[in-house]
Amino acid sequence: MLKLTAVYHIASGAESIAARARALAVEQSVEMPLEAITSAAVRDDIVGTVEDIRDLGGGTFEVRIALAAATTGNEPGQIMNMLFGNASILGDVTLVDTVFPAEMVSALPGPNIGIAGLKQRVQAARRALTCSALKPQGLSPGELGSLAAAMAEGGLDFIKDDHGLADQRYSPFAERVAAIAQAIRATGAGTAYIPSLTGTLDDIRRGTALARDNGLAAIMVAPMISGVATLAAIARENPDMAVMAHPALAGVARIAPALLIGKLFRLFGADAVVFPNYGGRFGYSREECGRLAANARLAVQGKRDAMPVPAGGMTLDRVDEILDFYGPDTMLLIGGNLLSAGDRLTREARRLQERVAAHRYA
Amino acid sequence: MLKLTAVYHIASGAESIAARARALAVEQSVEMPLEAITSAAVRDDIVGTVEDIRDLGGGTFEVRIALAAATTGNEPGQIMNMLFGNASILGDVTLVDTVFPAEMVSALPGPNIGIAGLKQRVQAARRALTCSALKPQGLSPGELGSLAAAMAEGGLDFIKDDHGLADQRYSPFAERVAAIAQAIRATGAGTAYIPSLTGTLDDIRRGTALARDNGLAAIMVAPMISGVATLAAIARENPDMAVMAHPALAGVARIAPALLIGKLFRLFGADAVVFPNYGGRFGYSREECGRLAANARLAVQGKRDAMPVPAGGMTLDRVDEILDFYGPDTMLLIGGNLLSAGDRLTREARRLQERVAAHRYA
Repeated sequence: MLKLTAVYHIASGAESIAARARALAVEQSVEMPLEAITSAAVRDDIVGTVEDIRDLGGGTFEVRIALAAATTGNEPGQIMNMLFGNASILGDVTLVDTVFPAEMVSALPGPNIGIAGLKQRVQAARRALTCSALKPQGLSPGELGSLAAAMAEGGLDFIKDDHGLADQRYSPFAERVAAIAQAIRATGAGTAYIPSLTGTLDDIRRGTALARDNGLAAIMVAPMISGVATLAAIARENPDMAVMAHPALAGVARIAPALLIGKLFRLFGADAVVFPNYGGRFGYSREECGRLAANARLAVQGKRDAMPVPAGGMTLDRVDEILDFYGPDTMLLIGGNLLSAGDRLTREARRLQERVAAHRYA
Repeated sequence: MLKLTAVYHIASGAESIAARARALAVEQSVEMPLEAITSAAVRDDIVGTVEDIRDLGGGTFEVRIALAAATTGNEPGQIMNMLFGNASILGDVTLVDTVFPAEMVSALPGPNIGIAGLKQRVQAARRALTCSALKPQGLSPGELGSLAAAMAEGGLDFIKDDHGLADQRYSPFAERVAAIAQAIRATGAGTAYIPSLTGTLDDIRRGTALARDNGLAAIMVAPMISGVATLAAIARENPDMAVMAHPALAGVARIAPALLIGKLFRLFGADAVVFPNYGGRFGYSREECGRLAANARLAVQGKRDAMPVPAGGMTLDRVDEILDFYGPDTMLLIGGNLLSAGDRLTREARRLQERVAAHRYA
């Protein structure tokens, strides 16, 4: 029977790790005492098995558990459930990686257009891309449109909504998207706008249709809020749309960002994955960010890659360092720091754009 | 402008807590440098404000932050986003409680039938209710039906699917639900069956309709997997259905379980909330479980209460202790321990049922 492998880190003493690993394999598969299972097929095929235990030192063990791929039905939500549903409630277990069989990968949507598609959209095959964020929430559609126009005039590749923009009384989704799309179009710049979609699958479907009606070809969702099944459904139903995934609420469960954001969001349909860059105000390490970007770009048979989008507290003077670290298959997202420029927003946007275009990789 | 209050615990030194609290208020509202905000309305109404900071000792501070209710649009996903979207990625911040204005609460669905409705369903107004879980996954619809019949013959009030049961090749959802519903009906017992629904909002809608076609009036979803907006949509669209919420992927500790499961899942539409009981194999403390149950039952103007459903590694010999702790407005969920009885499953189910019915509260 086809298996997937889930890799966990468990904080444990050496004397108890074998039992902990076996208990986790049971927890994430049948969740009941093995001696009470009378079906031989369940015992042989469905019960999770411990493939390997490795001592990482410092009281942490890496445990590889094989789970029957059939238990997931290749449904993204059920994949999350099998990988980490109950284990998320165990305080000392972290989900760090997965190995899916090719059959499972091929049943998942993966990115619609990937890194090459995103670069083609803004006619920039060789360089890293740029992006900024429209905020603060609380502005009217017209005010957001003016901000977007100022950024677009600076020549940015992409402008996304802050993930705080939803469907709010002071800035209803439909009005906001129309105003911003129109304001950017009026500049004549080639900037692509990425509205943030929230709510139920129906809401997000309506939002996607409305984005398309406004001439847009990219949207953003937060998969840990919307549910990963919603991400996958939207990606599948809109093969012409680029989907950006936002990490909001992704920190609740202890899942390694490189896995959740770099690998799983991509397999579930994200063309671009936003994540908090190292050295900013969030706690991701340089190494974890590197692994995340590597996962997003990893060659996977039959699936496009996803664009890593480091973000969060980034400043213009870090651009060279960040580009050298991530390389040209990257989209730099600088939000607040650019907005701080106030009246000089267009000039600062242009500085960012030119700096990224002129960068020579170390 | 109407405000909600979010209460966080932050690990911090005393000298930096004021700045940390202000930074969190900005992170969870406008997420940009305040000096770059030119709109007076945004500065006055939308930027989060620190209401209170309290030293809890041991390097932990309780911080109360006021956020504009209008930023949420009263949409469950956006409420999660505003409460903990970015903060979830800050390793030393925990969301522990919320205070919503009455206008927000009244805009949220809340439970359809609540504790009284669940008790009425099984004609047991004065006692605690019982529940068991169908597992392991991997069994066929017929095998699951036989298990369910054996449990129902023991007189249990409710039987739920294990949250691992989804739409799997070896036990497709439609066949499983029909087989189990039919098997329970054939016993003549008054046991109510709660199938577990997975996938997108569309999948869960189809599943709910199928449950209704099979004469069922209760379903289970895992809101942190499906998305809380899906929970709310299903609850609203199906006012005759009782909705049970499962804690899969809810994680431990970064959002206090008493808040997430006891308060928020209820406000978003759960009639019954499953949670790992203290003293089992998960890490929730007795105090946290008590707070969770208290939140689920708290009198809230215009909203029904939700049934606390302690579960996870519970055994028959703990029934008296657990009933004394939770009182009669509780549903006891004993899964694996009951299934361990094998051939004596009906007898053990009856023992559980009789013990709960006969219990005299301390």
